[in-house]
Amino acid sequence: MKAKSFAAPSATQPLEYYEFNRREPTPTDVEIDVHFCGVCHSDIHTARGDWGEVAYPCVPGHEIVGIVSRVGKAVTQFKPGDSVGVGCMVNSCGKCEACKRGFENSCFQEITWTYSSKDPIDGTDTKGGYSTLIVVPQHFVLQLPKSLDMPHAAPLLCAGITTYSPLNHWKVGPGMKVGVIGLGGLGHMGVKYAKAMGAKVWVITSSPEKVVAAKSYHVDGVVVSSVKEEMEAASHTFDFLLDTIPKAHDLSPYLKLLNIHGTLCLVGPIEPMPGFHSSAVINGQKSIAGSGIGGIKETQEMLQYSSEKNLLPEIEIITMDEINKAWESMTHKQMSKRYVIDIKKSFQ
Amino acid sequence: MKAKSFAAPSATQPLEYYEFNRREPTPTDVEIDVHFCGVCHSDIHTARGDWGEVAYPCVPGHEIVGIVSRVGKAVTQFKPGDSVGVGCMVNSCGKCEACKRGFENSCFQEITWTYSSKDPIDGTDTKGGYSTLIVVPQHFVLQLPKSLDMPHAAPLLCAGITTYSPLNHWKVGPGMKVGVIGLGGLGHMGVKYAKAMGAKVWVITSSPEKVVAAKSYHVDGVVVSSVKEEMEAASHTFDFLLDTIPKAHDLSPYLKLLNIHGTLCLVGPIEPMPGFHSSAVINGQKSIAGSGIGGIKETQEMLQYSSEKNLLPEIEIITMDEINKAWESMTHKQMSKRYVIDIKKSFQ
Repeated sequence: MKAKSFAAPSATQPLEYYEFNRREPTPTDVEIDVHFCGVCHSDIHTARGDWGEVAYPCVPGHEIVGIVSRVGKAVTQFKPGDSVGVGCMVNSCGKCEACKRGFENSCFQEITWTYSSKDPIDGTDTKGGYSTLIVVPQHFVLQLPKSLDMPHAAPLLCAGITTYSPLNHWKVGPGMKVGVIGLGGLGHMGVKYAKAMGAKVWVITSSPEKVVAAKSYHVDGVVVSSVKEEMEAASHTFDFLLDTIPKAHDLSPYLKLLNIHGTLCLVGPIEPMPGFHSSAVINGQKSIAGSGIGGIKETQEMLQYSSEKNLLPEIEIITMDEINKAWESMTHKQMSKRYVIDIKKSFQ
Repeated sequence: MKAKSFAAPSATQPLEYYEFNRREPTPTDVEIDVHFCGVCHSDIHTARGDWGEVAYPCVPGHEIVGIVSRVGKAVTQFKPGDSVGVGCMVNSCGKCEACKRGFENSCFQEITWTYSSKDPIDGTDTKGGYSTLIVVPQHFVLQLPKSLDMPHAAPLLCAGITTYSPLNHWKVGPGMKVGVIGLGGLGHMGVKYAKAMGAKVWVITSSPEKVVAAKSYHVDGVVVSSVKEEMEAASHTFDFLLDTIPKAHDLSPYLKLLNIHGTLCLVGPIEPMPGFHSSAVINGQKSIAGSGIGGIKETQEMLQYSSEKNLLPEIEIITMDEINKAWESMTHKQMSKRYVIDIKKSFQ
């Protein structure tokens, strides 16, 4: 089946219109008519080659929602007409301890990412959700709870699970003071989940202009990280910091904010981080942790949780012809919510 | 009172005989006639200036045991004749949340270390246990359980608590696979505690000649970190790594050994660490943590636990005239147990 998309033809050029073939569904594949796709900072990093060499054209997009159009013969969990989602992964080894325990996102062998990854099934480079169609093994397809509307569901598949999973794993809850560092697509979902889990939630931002946005989420406080006095006043007070800054940065100023036994969890940057002085963790039994998306089981749970608690991303719906402008705005940290591409409208 | 000691007169010269005055005990001070003092790698780092400028002469030693000789008028917890210990700290602010919660070792204001630290009481540079006498505020004096013999108790005050506390905090126990990286004074105590807590315990060492020593502690396995195949075979298998390497090192090879949700805890190096790729913690929700000694309450608990379970360091008793040779041996990683100085015998 022919899919229409926007793709990055090189590391430097803007996204352009592009057509390519999706494979015929194998017996265990689900074919999805894409309706919406969220725009993640990872799309930009990958397409611009920040994370290593990419085979162009690169079709980004891993916050995908749509309607099942066809299923393979052996597919039991889905049928045409179902509302479904696809996140960052479309395959993993399935055999290692991580996969067996439901942590496909930590597969010890090899994860097949939704785009720009070698597909073990057909040998092509995977192509993501900035396209009209996608074919995915059923194990990596999520069911969308009925009460979730499609455009709001899309960003949950990456921004949602990436913030929900660590808050869940590190048992964020009542009595804890949580700081969300960075208020973009991930950060604003982190704020919503941490509040829903019962913690006191602060936003720590380098952008004074985001204070208003932070307050609109009814946070318990805001620290502007460029203001020394505000950082000093907040030192030793946070039990958990969700660090959503999407590029490498010095952790030292943030580690100082942690209370005894506190954890700073990296979910934003996927790249070499600068060194740190070990006393920043040794004093106070602190941790520098990391977390990336979540397993399929937990992602399904997160969709259910988000639906039940009505924890939805703030979104701005765009069409594909606005994508290059959207990327620029995200690169310049002007966005404290999520862009979602209306794929149907874009390729009418 | 005059104290006799060995001191480092500069960063480069061997320790030399030295005399100095200890203050008269204040109402809350305890004066201790030192009998034994353990030799910690920190002594070497400090005296050689590895951790920053030091006022010489520097009298090291923070694994101190002895007998109370005098007490101040307001001292209620100790009396002359008591067997006691002093670890790495002799004061802290006492007012911050960390101190109030019993984590004086994480004081938010300032810790007064047992040596080479500015003493808030008399303004001198503190001088440690390579000496015949020490005067310490009662809050920082530990009671030695009767069944603990003095020379074996000494290393517990630093090597013991520094390994006990993180194993305790991260709930090491049955069903967990623990790796102790480095088999020196700290490492061998880590092995003993982790085994006593019920975990499967492995030693990871860069020194093939330490395999025999490791096996003498009845460990479940040994990985020689310089052998690529051994490191690969152990990848993704450890729930907790206690990293006792006493200097900065690349964490990447060790993070690969962690299972999902695993934690590597630094207790050895107190210095700038090299950078790391964030994916090393993001894949698998792993943590790089740190831990340094423990609070006074936990140190007292550790002494009790060690006494009850008979978890004692392997020691080699030396006299002060052998100290320079001992330091050389430790610097060259030839020691998988702890040197303890017989102070009484040294200054007869």
